[in-house]
Amino acid sequence: MTTTRDTVLSGMQPSGALHIGNWLGALENWVAMQDVYESYFMVADYHSLTTGYHDTSALPGLVFQMVVDWLAAGLDPHRSIIFRQSDVPQHAELHLLLSMITPLGWLERVPSYKEKLKELAQRDIHTYGFLGYPVLMSSDILLYRARKVPVGQDQVPHVELTREIVRRFNGLYGEVLPEPEAILTEAKVLPGLDGKKMSKSYGNTLALGESANDVSQKIRVMMTDPARIRKSDPGHPDVCPVFSLHKVFTAPERVSEIDVACRSAQIGCVDCKAILAGEINARLDPIREERVRWEHQPEQVQEILHQGAIKAREAAQETLSLVKDAMHLTTLE
Amino acid sequence: MTTTRDTVLSGMQPSGALHIGNWLGALENWVAMQDVYESYFMVADYHSLTTGYHDTSALPGLVFQMVVDWLAAGLDPHRSIIFRQSDVPQHAELHLLLSMITPLGWLERVPSYKEKLKELAQRDIHTYGFLGYPVLMSSDILLYRARKVPVGQDQVPHVELTREIVRRFNGLYGEVLPEPEAILTEAKVLPGLDGKKMSKSYGNTLALGESANDVSQKIRVMMTDPARIRKSDPGHPDVCPVFSLHKVFTAPERVSEIDVACRSAQIGCVDCKAILAGEINARLDPIREERVRWEHQPEQVQEILHQGAIKAREAAQETLSLVKDAMHLTTLE
Ligand code: SF4
Ligand code: SF4
Repeated sequence: MTTTRDTVLSGMQPSGALHIGNWLGALENWVAMQDVYESYFMVADYHSLTTGYHDTSALPGLVFQMVVDWLAAGLDPHRSIIFRQSDVPQHAELHLLLSMITPLGWLERVPSYKEKLKELAQRDIHTYGFLGYPVLMSSDILLYRARKVPVGQDQVPHVELTREIVRRFNGLYGEVLPEPEAILTEAKVLPGLDGKKMSKSYGNTLALGESANDVSQKIRVMMTDPARIRKSDPGHPDVCPVFSLHKVFTAPERVSEIDVACRSAQIGCVDCKAILAGEINARLDPIREERVRWEHQPEQVQEILHQGAIKAREAAQETLSLVKDAMHLTTLE
Repeated sequence: MTTTRDTVLSGMQPSGALHIGNWLGALENWVAMQDVYESYFMVADYHSLTTGYHDTSALPGLVFQMVVDWLAAGLDPHRSIIFRQSDVPQHAELHLLLSMITPLGWLERVPSYKEKLKELAQRDIHTYGFLGYPVLMSSDILLYRARKVPVGQDQVPHVELTREIVRRFNGLYGEVLPEPEAILTEAKVLPGLDGKKMSKSYGNTLALGESANDVSQKIRVMMTDPARIRKSDPGHPDVCPVFSLHKVFTAPERVSEIDVACRSAQIGCVDCKAILAGEINARLDPIREERVRWEHQPEQVQEILHQGAIKAREAAQETLSLVKDAMHLTTLE
């Protein structure tokens, strides 16, 4: 694959159907990247094993639902490479090779390591694989010779470690691997139905594929300004979660009108919510349609992953061959 | 590959040309195993990186010379599968999968771990890969569903760990992997030219491919019974390294004659050594011939490894598919 465009690799652990916070926070960026970069989008199923090896029975469904969301939101298999990590053996091979030169101390010092061990204390993730997570992530990035890695602030130390591994590798075996650079993506945080950050763990989400009825229903029961008891009470939009979502989904002039109307008790919460539901549903309608279409074609989705894996393997093998040559692992004399 | 024979996997790190101690200590066993077991013989080049990642420039030559010795000593690519570990991606893949379920504590407790860290303190092997050595070895064994693993006493804890990993895997994902069993091979220790154990690190070896002249010359300058100054002094065969080698290479009746003749000063050391050189050369002649033949056909040797890799990959993929199925890593629903 010869191209003058920079390559980017992005991945998500298979967490099932995405919510609209994932969509506006990450997926929309990904959709836009397709026109700018040689883009690889990876279902990080190996990564998900580092913390979720105990029970993997849901994995196939989670992968499927997530990829359906990716496609429905606009990832295009003709313009980018959509694949599953475990379908590309080169990830494991490069991981193993890099493991040989990665000091244990580097891994133990990664900030997320100790944090997650604490956070997931009940899960028993004191495993060899969990410690090696950053080596695996380095392999992901380096296999596609990605120069840019779009990540959130919490992932920056992982990209830093990748750069350290690259310098060590190149120092030992010659200049083979390019140093990648983190592109900090300002993670747009979407407020959830309760005003807190939208997150699966808070149970305050709207799924990307949620039916129009469910969207309306979930918005209908949202909390609003707690001080507004009667429709005739003036409201305070700045403390109302409904208003927060208006700011994301409703046109700015309309948002201003609602602001004024709420403060002057000219609009009731029921109507205000109906407007919001209408706006969100209008945005979700095309995605929902696409979603239904893909959901009914599982073979097609599988085929996209299959074709993506073929392309990913080809690109990955190029790098792996360079790496193995540099390490004198290939040619007999 | 369907067979009713048990499968065994044996491996050696690529250490270059073997000496006759390696041959009698291990290789001869391997040659015999070919007729009894479905035999896999692996050039463990990944393993050699765990302690030797610093400089791999000699690796291709070391691999080549070792495989030439294997073939010359009688490993037969028609009766067994001779391959290089790094040519079979499934080793890295299974290693990664097993890493997810292997507690760090299990690895830190392997006796050889702390020992080797100390022993090779100057080499900086505090790496992630070195810690994972036993997981990699488990993958080697399990990929070929080997029931028997011929190992020396020092490797028994590694086979034990493999069994623990198997039990954990089967507990989590179902009965997929068979528990392997260590076969303790009594490592026949060959005395070296100085009477100590024959070992590269003592510089007291005879290479398997050593020329007849070099063998004779090296034996000519061997120390003998230090109390025997003149030919007329009676000798003490029990303290003579030459006699130790006679016991390995010379027919028992002849050894008894020499014993008597030495003690009664009826044979001189020069003659005694000439007999030994003759016996060793007679044993090495056919191997030497084969060795020269293979050494002049590097493409043929490469082809043997290539064909071996194809067969090994096929067998390994069968297991890997079972493992991935059990872990729900394959099928989309
Ligand atoms: S009118 Fe709208 S913005 Fe005002 S409190 Fe009710 S829901 Fe919130
Ligand atoms: S005669 Fe042979 S056995 Fe006796 S001391 Fe000399 S070399 Fe050793």
